[in-house]
Amino acid sequence: MASTAGRSRVARARVIAVRDGRARERADGLAAEEPLEIRAAGPGQEPVRVAVTMRTPGHDFELAVGLCHSDGLLGGAPVLTCRYCGTGSAVESGFNVVTVTSRAPFDLGAAERNFFASSSCGICGKAALEAVAVRCEPLDDAATAGEATLLGLPDAMRAAQRVFDRTGGLHAAALFTGDGDLLLLREDVGRHNAVDKVAGALALEGGDGAGRILVVSGRLSFEIVQKAAVARVPILCAVSAPSSLAVDAAEALGLTAVGFLRPGGFNIYARPERIVTAEAP
Amino acid sequence: MASTAGRSRVARARVIAVRDGRARERADGLAAEEPLEIRAAGPGQEPVRVAVTMRTPGHDFELAVGLCHSDGLLGGAPVLTCRYCGTGSAVESGFNVVTVTSRAPFDLGAAERNFFASSSCGICGKAALEAVAVRCEPLDDAATAGEATLLGLPDAMRAAQRVFDRTGGLHAAALFTGDGDLLLLREDVGRHNAVDKVAGALALEGGDGAGRILVVSGRLSFEIVQKAAVARVPILCAVSAPSSLAVDAAEALGLTAVGFLRPGGFNIYARPERIVTAEAP
Repeated sequence: MASTAGRSRVARARVIAVRDGRARERADGLAAEEPLEIRAAGPGQEPVRVAVTMRTPGHDFELAVGLCHSDGLLGGAPVLTCRYCGTGSAVESGFNVVTVTSRAPFDLGAAERNFFASSSCGICGKAALEAVAVRCEPLDDAATAGEATLLGLPDAMRAAQRVFDRTGGLHAAALFTGDGDLLLLREDVGRHNAVDKVAGALALEGGDGAGRILVVSGRLSFEIVQKAAVARVPILCAVSAPSSLAVDAAEALGLTAVGFLRPGGFNIYARPERIVTAEAP
Repeated sequence: MASTAGRSRVARARVIAVRDGRARERADGLAAEEPLEIRAAGPGQEPVRVAVTMRTPGHDFELAVGLCHSDGLLGGAPVLTCRYCGTGSAVESGFNVVTVTSRAPFDLGAAERNFFASSSCGICGKAALEAVAVRCEPLDDAATAGEATLLGLPDAMRAAQRVFDRTGGLHAAALFTGDGDLLLLREDVGRHNAVDKVAGALALEGGDGAGRILVVSGRLSFEIVQKAAVARVPILCAVSAPSSLAVDAAEALGLTAVGFLRPGGFNIYARPERIVTAEAP
């Protein structure tokens, strides 16, 4: 029952479906998962491996740029090229190594130092928060969104999740305008990857997430809040629960954090002033 | 609305709950998330940082040992000590750095070489599969489990998820006997961490997962299959979907992979011979 992924986002497989005591073999679609090695280089620098992530193929350049951007490796410099190893082509093709080159030198040591800046002995939640604040100014975005707009986002996201429909196994991140219009949606087996793909798409356009709403299909972790803040998205919504550090980070970075966004309601965990409800608390 | 995690697995927070146009402030519980730095050392070696993971505090020694074990860093050698940095104590306390020392020298380079052994230019799914096969012999476990047993596992797991009940935001991994008796359950904001905690608990007892069933609350990724194989668990079940590479890895490593384990049925993706159904396919 080996799957055949190829370069598709959906792999075909034979499965045995067991229902009420009956076992039947049938065809099934699986979310494709493959490793991607991401390398980075500045002008005249040899590419250095900065990450290996298990991801769903597709939008690999966005993922690579988004991950470098989220980790502070680009330092705000524009991306010059994005290439698959061995092809020299800027068109996505069948490889699992992407090299990102930017106009400024990469300071790989800086990224690591950022995270461990305050770790004399133990690194604690507070140290991690201070580390992320170093490479990301708190948001000061006057954007607002209405209750009815937020309540419509999960259905809009779900309707656009084409790979999920065929596999039932993908996370999604979707960027909306403040009025709830879908701008872009990315899917991946990894929650963080889906967000990096959105952040990378913004960075490749030379833009950012100012005034936008980002919706993620799962839970809100510290790292997802950090990625949203670096992408300058002021309103971050999740279909499921946030973690404690996600809420602390959102508060510190000026992000509005919404969780349990489901039919009939949601919870606001940080910076509620951007959400307009019919009746104030 | 900053949360107060302390060393608890549940952080208290104030949230604004919006329901049908009404916004009300109320108390809420959040799944605690904090960074854990894991260091490893052999006899006479200086500890080296091998990982930093965002995790829910609790069972930190199991997590540290499980992660080292899953990554092949222990090389089968018994763990001598597990300590929080700065305390010298083998009792879990309020720190976020754990050092694992083992009876054999750590070969940190080997772990990295394993993963990249076959990456001449691109690393592909096949290379990654070969890499994991290097450090993990395929399973040859005659264990079987009945359809009715499997169908009872999600409810048994859910009933034991105490932190989830208070936060709605945690993944779980649960180890069962072949007859469906719960042996241990671990919760974490990270899916991989929950599995590492189970694997670490087994390693610290000097045992393994032979004859057992491991159930995870989310999806099946390549890495989770790999962790289960290293822990020698023959039957791996998930409440949600597997990825393509998870199925390929299960097939190659001799693991039975079950997905969409829900009331009324499930799908078998690899090695179906261990699952006994009323009616064969």
